[in-house]
Order: sequence, then C-alpha cells, then structure tokens
Amino acid sequence: MSATIRTTILNLNSFQQGDMNGLDAETKHLVQKREEELGPAYRLFYRHPVHLVKGKGSRLWDADGEEYLDMYNNVVSVGHCNPDVVAAITKQASTLNTHTRYLHEGILNYAQDILSTMPDEIDQIMFQCTGSEANDLAIRVARKYTGNEGVIITSNAYHGNSALISELSPAQGLAQPIALTARMIPAPDAYHFEQMGLDHSPSAQELGEWMAGKVREAVADMERHGIKLAAFLADTAFSSDGMYLNPRGFLKPVLQAVHEAGGVYIADEVQPGFCRTGDDFWGFQRHGIVPDIVTSGKPMANGLPTSMMAAKREVLAPFATTMPYFNTYGGNPVCMAAAQATLNYLRDHDVLANARQTGDALRAALRDFATTHPVIGDVRGAGQFTGCEIVKPGTKEPDTALTLDILEQLREHHVLTGTCGINGNVLKLRPPLVFTFDDVDFFMDALGASFAAVGA
Amino acid sequence: MSATIRTTILNLNSFQQGDMNGLDAETKHLVQKREEELGPAYRLFYRHPVHLVKGKGSRLWDADGEEYLDMYNNVVSVGHCNPDVVAAITKQASTLNTHTRYLHEGILNYAQDILSTMPDEIDQIMFQCTGSEANDLAIRVARKYTGNEGVIITSNAYHGNSALISELSPAQGLAQPIALTARMIPAPDAYHFEQMGLDHSPSAQELGEWMAGKVREAVADMERHGIKLAAFLADTAFSSDGMYLNPRGFLKPVLQAVHEAGGVYIADEVQPGFCRTGDDFWGFQRHGIVPDIVTSGKPMANGLPTSMMAAKREVLAPFATTMPYFNTYGGNPVCMAAAQATLNYLRDHDVLANARQTGDALRAALRDFATTHPVIGDVRGAGQFTGCEIVKPGTKEPDTALTLDILEQLREHHVLTGTCGINGNVLKLRPPLVFTFDDVDFFMDALGASFAAVGA
Repeated sequence: MSATIRTTILNLNSFQQGDMNGLDAETKHLVQKREEELGPAYRLFYRHPVHLVKGKGSRLWDADGEEYLDMYNNVVSVGHCNPDVVAAITKQASTLNTHTRYLHEGILNYAQDILSTMPDEIDQIMFQCTGSEANDLAIRVARKYTGNEGVIITSNAYHGNSALISELSPAQGLAQPIALTARMIPAPDAYHFEQMGLDHSPSAQELGEWMAGKVREAVADMERHGIKLAAFLADTAFSSDGMYLNPRGFLKPVLQAVHEAGGVYIADEVQPGFCRTGDDFWGFQRHGIVPDIVTSGKPMANGLPTSMMAAKREVLAPFATTMPYFNTYGGNPVCMAAAQATLNYLRDHDVLANARQTGDALRAALRDFATTHPVIGDVRGAGQFTGCEIVKPGTKEPDTALTLDILEQLREHHVLTGTCGINGNVLKLRPPLVFTFDDVDFFMDALGASFAAVGA
Repeated sequence: MSATIRTTILNLNSFQQGDMNGLDAETKHLVQKREEELGPAYRLFYRHPVHLVKGKGSRLWDADGEEYLDMYNNVVSVGHCNPDVVAAITKQASTLNTHTRYLHEGILNYAQDILSTMPDEIDQIMFQCTGSEANDLAIRVARKYTGNEGVIITSNAYHGNSALISELSPAQGLAQPIALTARMIPAPDAYHFEQMGLDHSPSAQELGEWMAGKVREAVADMERHGIKLAAFLADTAFSSDGMYLNPRGFLKPVLQAVHEAGGVYIADEVQPGFCRTGDDFWGFQRHGIVPDIVTSGKPMANGLPTSMMAAKREVLAPFATTMPYFNTYGGNPVCMAAAQATLNYLRDHDVLANARQTGDALRAALRDFATTHPVIGDVRGAGQFTGCEIVKPGTKEPDTALTLDILEQLREHHVLTGTCGINGNVLKLRPPLVFTFDDVDFFMDALGASFAAVGA
C-alpha cells in the first residue's frame, strides 16, 4: 500500500490534464505553451495553476492582481525581492563576475563568515550552484574518504536530481530505482510511535535508539551483500518524509551508529539550514551533533543558484587532494554577494528570533484550531517549519484526499503551500522567514474558511 | 606517455605551492586564506595568481588597477558587466523570483525564442543551472530512450563535475576513473593527419569516416562486453581535446554511425553554442547535423548559473513521461531574464558577425606571426574560438613546457588566456564575443613580447 501511495503523491499537488477545461483562456494558453515547449517532466502546482507576476516580503501577486500569502517558498528566506539582496546582486553584477580560478575576496569573506556559524571541526567549504550538486559532491567525498560505497537514506527522502542523487531520493517515485548500494530506513516518525512498539511519544533517547537500530539493520543487510557504509545522508528536518524535528537530540545515537559502521554523516541542510528552525542557524545543531559533511542550497542566496558543501578537512582531504573540482558558476562573485547580503540580513534583523516567535504563534494557533477540527492529527515543527498532519478523525490513518482538498481550498483562499510525507497527508507550512504575526492571522482565517469549504 | 602528460596538464596553468615565495604580501594572504577555507580541490590560474576587482567588455582590472585583455572567459559572451543583462537581472530580481511550479511568461517566451534558433526537430527544452546538470540529465534521457547504458566520449573531453559526468570527463585526470560502460575515442585531430594514415590534411568526408570508424570500433568493443550504445556525447568544438572545428561537415558520418548503433547523439554546446563559432548560432550547425539532444550552459545568461537541455520530443518522452524533474532554481524568472537579455543582445548587435570578423582577423594575424615563429605548428578555429598549437620547430611534437611559459608571459603582458589539448600545448583563445579589432592588435603585441621574453 505504501508503494501505491508513494507513486500517487508525486501527482498530488499537480495540475492534471483533466483540469484543463476549468481554466480561463489565458491560463489555458500558458499551460499548453508549457506542455508544448517544456515537455511532460514539468509539474504545475494546483488544479487551477497560479500565474505569478510579483512578490514582496511574504506576499505574491498573480496576473489578475490577486494577493497571496506565500507559505511554500523557503528559497526566498529573507523575503521576496529583498532590497538588500537585489542591491548586492546589482552592485556586483555591475562590477565583476568571473570564476574561482582568479583570486576574489567575496568568496573568501563569505566562506569565513558561513564557516563561523558551524562547529569548529567543520572547517572547509566548497561552493556549487544547486543542492543536487552539493549532495552529489558530498557522496563522492564520503566514498573517497571511507573507501566504501553504501548509503543509507530515509524512505521518502529527497536530496536532488542528478543521476547519483536521484538514486538516493525515494520521493522521486517508483519510476526511479534506488541505488543497489543504498538502503532505506523509516523516518523518525514520533507521531506514529506505535510503529516503534511504544505506547507513548518517544523521548529523544528512545527515538534515537530506535532509529540507530534501523541504521544498524541496514548496515548489516548491506554488509551481507558485500557493501560497506560510506554515508548516512539525511535532511536534518526530514522535510520530505513529513517534518520530524523533535524531540531535540534524537540524532545523537544515529550519528554514533553511523560512525561505528565506518560511515560519514552527511547533514542535508538545504531545507533546515539558514535559521529555518528558529532555534539554531543549522538544523543539526538542535540535535547537538557535529556532522562530517554539511550541504545546503535553497535559501543561501535568497534565490540565486548557490549551494555549498562544508566538511571536516580530514574527511574532505582524500577527495580534494586527488581530484581537481571546478564549477564554472560555483562561488562566483555575484552569487557570493547575494549569499553575503542574505547572511547579513539574517543576522542584522534577527530573523532567527522572528522565525521562532512567529512559528510558535502559528503552531499555537493550529493546535487551538485542532481542538475543534479532529482531522488534524498532529501539529509539529520548529521555527518556520510546520507540519500539520491530516488524518481520519479518531485515528492516525492518513487522509490524503482531504489533505489535497484543503490545499486546493487554501489556494482559493489566497494561501500558497504544499504537502509532504510518505502518504502526502502533511501540510507543509514553510514560508519566507520574514513571516509576521499578521501573516499568522491571515493564514488561520484562510484555514478556517478552507476547512469549512471542505466540511472538515 | 600520453597518460603521464594527461596527469600533468591538470596542473599546467596552476599556481603551485612552490610559487608562494614570489608573491607580494596581499596576494600571499589571499592564497593562504583560500587554501585554508576552500581546501585543496580548488585551483588558481598562474604562478602569479590574478586578483581581479573589475570587468567591462573584453577587459578586466586587478586590485592594483592593472588592465587585462580577457581572452579566456567565454561565459561573459556579451561582455563583462553587460549593462543590458545587469538591468534585466535587477528588474526581474526586484519584481519576482520563484520556481517552475507556477506559471511564468519568462521561461515560456525564452523557451520559444531559443528553440527557434534550432532545427525544427529539436522542439522541447528543460532548464537547469549548470552545464554539468544539463549533461547529467541528457545521459539519463538517452539511457531511458535507448534502454542502453554505453557512452562514447573523446579522449580528453570535459563535460562536467557530477558523479555521472565526471566519469565521462577524461580531462579530469587519471584520479577520476572513466565509467566501465564508457569508451573513449581519439579527437578529430586534423592537424596530426599522419595518425589517420593520411599524407594530407583530411577532407570533411575523410575525417568524418575516420572518426565514424572509431565510433564503430568502440561500439564493437562495448558490445563484446555486453553493453549497447546509449549515447555519443561530444563538445561540438572539441574544446578540451584541443579545438577541432574544421573542416565543416565532418560530424555527418559520425552521427550516422551513432544512429546505426542505436545510440543518441548529444551535442554538448556549452562552449561552441551561442554564436561562439562566428558562423552559426550553434556549433553543430557548422556540420549540417541535427543532434538528438543539445546541452548548453556557460554563455547562456552571461554569468548567472543557467543551463539547458533541448531534445527531440520523441527522445525526451520515455524519461519525461515517467519521471518528474524539478530543479529549484532551473528556469527561474531571474535566470530567464538574464538569458533573454543575453540572447537579445547577441541578435541586436549581430555578435555572430563580430565574432566571425574579429576571429578571422585574429587567426590571420597569428598565421602571419607563425611564418617567423616556427614553434606555432597550427592555428585553427572559427569565430572567437582559436587554437594555437605550440610544437618543437620542424615537427608536430608538442612543446608543453614552452606553451606554459608563453601563457605565463602573456599574463605578465596583460592578456589572460588558457591552454587545452591532451598534451596541454594548445593556447586556447576564447574571449568574450564583444572582442574588437583593437583587441586583436593588443593581443598580437602582447604575443610578440611574450615570444621574445621566452626566446621562441
């Protein structure tokens, strides 16, 4: 059953051919032009796709002038069209844009700055353009360091779109085979604690030991097939799996199990990094662990294609001393200027505190709302990373169809968001970090209206 | 022997640890900071690295205010800091930047526009951020379409840095193993025609038949190992191999041999595309062939990370109908605006004609210079893509050390360029396409002084 559902969720929040008839002429024209020019691999959100023309802060506007609250786009962390970032891009693009085979202060200053947000042990950094590229490189570095091939991932993880990383991204769907050298383990789903044989919500130690056990089982199976562990690769917030950030600290026993097996711990911080969780700059910090490699991307330069792979220098060395690595655009002065402006903004405006405070307010409002709306089975998260799990009332069974209906209603009520989880029944509330308390109210009003519309 | 040389060329135009003593305090500080923060995989050009702070048109300036003629950077095709492109970036970054799951005209208008530069059969396009990502996707598409695994590449090709594409990039050096499913064939080196058993410079038909024969040999060897051909992947200008663009038409028999073996022809147009060759918008057009897949990147958006994979829709379909593909930044409105402004500039200023005319002038000047400088064995190319092969006088034997000395002297005489070829003995002259006739004169003066300095 989970296999069937896993195929389905790919299309969950997608425009389908059958939705074409309901569209106005202009939207229909754009959809058809897309299909004609870009081909069938592209997906549009919503039965009624959104045609955006403008953005500012946490808000977006469509071609008809309708305003939307953006609760999906984690890339523009410091707000759509953040003027500081735009100014930095314009200034640097007007001055110089080259590559890393010449000396430039931009990359060096940013490297120092971003490394200073990490534990001392993680002391070298390389720049790419996308999260996929960062994870692709991280796996190569881990394999070279360990001399091993095996990789452990969670069962609905998404880490990117390169050939190597697609094979480590089960959320891509069943058409994409998982690498023969990889093993999937279940996500740390503290909500469904019965699956762990518990009768209560697990402590960090209980959840961590359970997950570490899954790692050990995966390693044993791998080794039976002659494969040794190179890396454990996980999104520290388990975003695609359904958002599992709590209780703080549960990744400690997992990291220990990975190291015991000779593997490298890779923290994919594409989603949880850069203040998203409200508590710490990096998601891994909430667990008190020091990964061997850290990757990130999306929010790093507020929308310019910019990513990074940081590592302990001894882990990086076997790859980096034998293999030249050049990425034409990676670390270029314009991307670095955008990244620096983003980082400055995060600090100067204490965006971390804002994410924590508005996120706490959002979850408090949701939990209050849940008391009278029993389809909300769980509200979880940290900072501006909130999961809201939709179930059949009185059970923990997923209600995937209802989740989708709510999502579509939210769009009609001018809130853009998404879903996640292996059953596609978790509302993924992941707005720009400049979210306000007014935005919380706006969202709750839209949610109330959406629930009323679907009779939930 | 070629193996040894192939390792060496990676370090050819690289700063080495031993060069540190000669540096001024500021440069030394930046070099040390780089090594400390970015680790050992990064390479700096030149024994005396260049610290750039400003660019405009075909010129660059270092921190001491020294001006350089840029004959290396093919990314900034329409000139460093092209004001039209900067304005387009600023305007779009100030308006909206999201992803491709909402409708946006920018990507659709650009898709239509860029597809109109290609043969009718190549009618769908997908956007990524880097040439590596484009080639990575192209190989996956080719494998899905053919159901086969094998790939043929040339022996000093470079196609990118992902795990998959690194294994198809022999120019990465001996530390990077080539995929077990790949076979290398020699580049179409018309200069060394003796290696083809000829006593004269080959006609297009002769060169093409010879290369097609190499493809057939590679296919036969693959098949003996149980592998069938998925794709032939080649830079249409064979840039990394040493720049082999002539005679026009030699790729026709090659494409035929690829198709006979059931494979897909992938034209890597990262370097030759976007008017580089002066004769046609795309490099493959000079050979009168229609590839099945076309990839490009570097000059596409004049420096913003933007790339593309275009294909015949029937070739794309098996992948695209089964596999969703999402690239967070790929095809975003800002990158598309930069790409559109670049394309507009290319057309509005007839940059193609400028590349042809200034390129022809450059090669004419070089050939004249070669009559009194016998270390220049060959001057070849098209448009602003010129190779100048340095040999031991009276022979066709590579003089790799001399090439490097000339390169370093050119830097001292304020010309930045690079080398290519399996022996690293070809000066790679590949400036922004807004090169001028004055730039030709500036370069020839610097070349004369550089040759005098090395006694060549």
